[in-house]
Amino acid sequence: KHILIVPGDGIGQEVTEVGKKVLEKIAAKFGHDFTYDEALIGHVAIEATGDPLPAETLEKMKASDAVLFGAVGHPKYDNDPSAKVRPEQGLLKMRKELGLYANLRPIKLFDELLSASSIKPEILKGADILFFRELTGDIYFGEKGRKNNGDTAYDVAEYSRYEVERIGRKAFEAARTRKKHLVSVDKANVLESSRLWREEIQKLALEYPDVTVEYQFVDATAMLLIKDPKRFDVVVTANLFGDILTDEASQIAGSMGMLASASIGDGTGVYEPIHGSAHDITGKGLANPMASVLSAALLLDISFGMKAESEVVINAVDQVLKKGFRTGDIADATTDKSMILGTDAIG
Amino acid sequence: KHILIVPGDGIGQEVTEVGKKVLEKIAAKFGHDFTYDEALIGHVAIEATGDPLPAETLEKMKASDAVLFGAVGHPKYDNDPSAKVRPEQGLLKMRKELGLYANLRPIKLFDELLSASSIKPEILKGADILFFRELTGDIYFGEKGRKNNGDTAYDVAEYSRYEVERIGRKAFEAARTRKKHLVSVDKANVLESSRLWREEIQKLALEYPDVTVEYQFVDATAMLLIKDPKRFDVVVTANLFGDILTDEASQIAGSMGMLASASIGDGTGVYEPIHGSAHDITGKGLANPMASVLSAALLLDISFGMKAESEVVINAVDQVLKKGFRTGDIADATTDKSMILGTDAIG
Ligand SMILES: CC(C)[C@H](C(=O)O)[C@@H](O)C(=O)O
Ligand SMILES: CC(C)[C@H](C(=O)O)[C@@H](O)C(=O)O
Repeated sequence: KHILIVPGDGIGQEVTEVGKKVLEKIAAKFGHDFTYDEALIGHVAIEATGDPLPAETLEKMKASDAVLFGAVGHPKYDNDPSAKVRPEQGLLKMRKELGLYANLRPIKLFDELLSASSIKPEILKGADILFFRELTGDIYFGEKGRKNNGDTAYDVAEYSRYEVERIGRKAFEAARTRKKHLVSVDKANVLESSRLWREEIQKLALEYPDVTVEYQFVDATAMLLIKDPKRFDVVVTANLFGDILTDEASQIAGSMGMLASASIGDGTGVYEPIHGSAHDITGKGLANPMASVLSAALLLDISFGMKAESEVVINAVDQVLKKGFRTGDIADATTDKSMILGTDAIG
Repeated sequence: KHILIVPGDGIGQEVTEVGKKVLEKIAAKFGHDFTYDEALIGHVAIEATGDPLPAETLEKMKASDAVLFGAVGHPKYDNDPSAKVRPEQGLLKMRKELGLYANLRPIKLFDELLSASSIKPEILKGADILFFRELTGDIYFGEKGRKNNGDTAYDVAEYSRYEVERIGRKAFEAARTRKKHLVSVDKANVLESSRLWREEIQKLALEYPDVTVEYQFVDATAMLLIKDPKRFDVVVTANLFGDILTDEASQIAGSMGMLASASIGDGTGVYEPIHGSAHDITGKGLANPMASVLSAALLLDISFGMKAESEVVINAVDQVLKKGFRTGDIADATTDKSMILGTDAIG
């Protein structure tokens, strides 16, 4: 199995290094032969080549069995709305070119972190949500530009039936293996693309009579996720709504630093933390690498079908937490200072 | 002063009745002469006239000094994505026709409700946020439709410089009277309309050097609102992001049933709860009318400049809570059952 490591920007570098070490340990322990290569994306790729997704990186991705990804982004571009070349273009192009239309984000709280969240433990205990975020359509990829001499800017949100059906099917299939409850999130009371979305999910629902489907407007979901996270099992939604709701839902897991995601579709799967490049803590050895480690676990499970190996990794994270070790982001007032470790040490 | 009562659908009817009674009490107490009229909108208007915003309603709105609004919506349309006439069209048309480009949503927790939220009291205590949601632009009002024989649906998100500037200015002005901290929320790393949004806020910031401006991506805000609500003072954002974030932020106030909003702009101001029509509890006398009562307080303050009168209303809500009275939505495990009242009684 050939694994491409794509650390990207900011803390992506630090956390992916830990994720890779975990893959090496697993290979040694289970007698697998994993080979590795590395490639650039985002700001570091722009600096080196002028292109946020160099052709060489894309070729390497297509030729590998799985990609362990870090993060992209840099404050320099965020505060310069007129920049023409941006790190995020690399990320979006990768998603499109690899056909990564399904982004899976499991939100599950490690028991040890019950008190790390801003939400009450009794509200959280037992919450276990699997998000399916559509990743190659919507307002991310529609036409965008300026008109009226640059005085007006526009972005087109767009969905085809085919795009909704394929992500919907993945969500229904997953719901079947879980609590058989699916929430489809849209804004069908306002958006035409949401109405088409709802039509397609309604059609699919006929094929999955064993799955209970609930339709929610995105504003209601944003509220209910915090009010009562346990009412959710599988959630399927569009690209933009998924971006917002899964970051919000990270608070259910105590910290963004604990959440992994899998982007899958037509070819190579890409596995990455849901957190960003976090330039404010970059290079300080403070980043929580557990989301990258758990991304490696998802990689083993989904792309390589190595369920046992994946569980060993998840268990290891659990053991580290049970022993009381924490990174800064998941420590609380009761944490003994000596148990707060940096990126490498906790890795 | 002439006040138009527009209850709309579902619990809109029940809660607006209480809101109106409060206005009558204030008029009597302070010796004001308020006159009232009533008009239809939403599902009830469709049933009566075929039109979700009858011309007569719009005329009456324009001719009044303020509108006390309820809610619109009906499950019948939600589950029928192909319906051509929908209650929400009445709401959106009203916003456009009255030029209600600024939706103010104050999020403030009554101390008595600290324990009613799913968020920890120590995270909430002291949180006080004022949202400015743009209300007449964005993907709500851009072109929308189908193409490719109906197989693709699209919605255009659009902002002009002028639209961003006028809502931005209102937010900066408000920040000046508060903690002088403004968070502008966009998705400028992906959307062109967000980049224009950010450019305009950056320009305005030069005119308000006493206000500290922070730029956030909407996914980060969705997370930070729950993680650390106290870091926010004034927030300004686009129509769709504002819809999602303010419903989410309702959890900071313990319940959607406590949150009022003011929609202002070129003419008559409209005051309404942020909750919806809630058909599941309609007609049962269970709805929490406090959001409508607090909407009446906003109406007195903003449209009539009656600050003292407004404070009397807010104090009355506070007293009701201090005495231990609750509606079901804000009761918790420790609430004495006999203190849980219905809509009229708590009104
Ligand atoms: C960096 C950004 C473009 C990206 C997105 O919005 O998809 C990120 O927030 C994510 O969720 O992966
Ligand atoms: C009913 C709906 C169209 C409306 C909106 O999305 O604006 C509502 O959610 C609101 O926030 O007032």
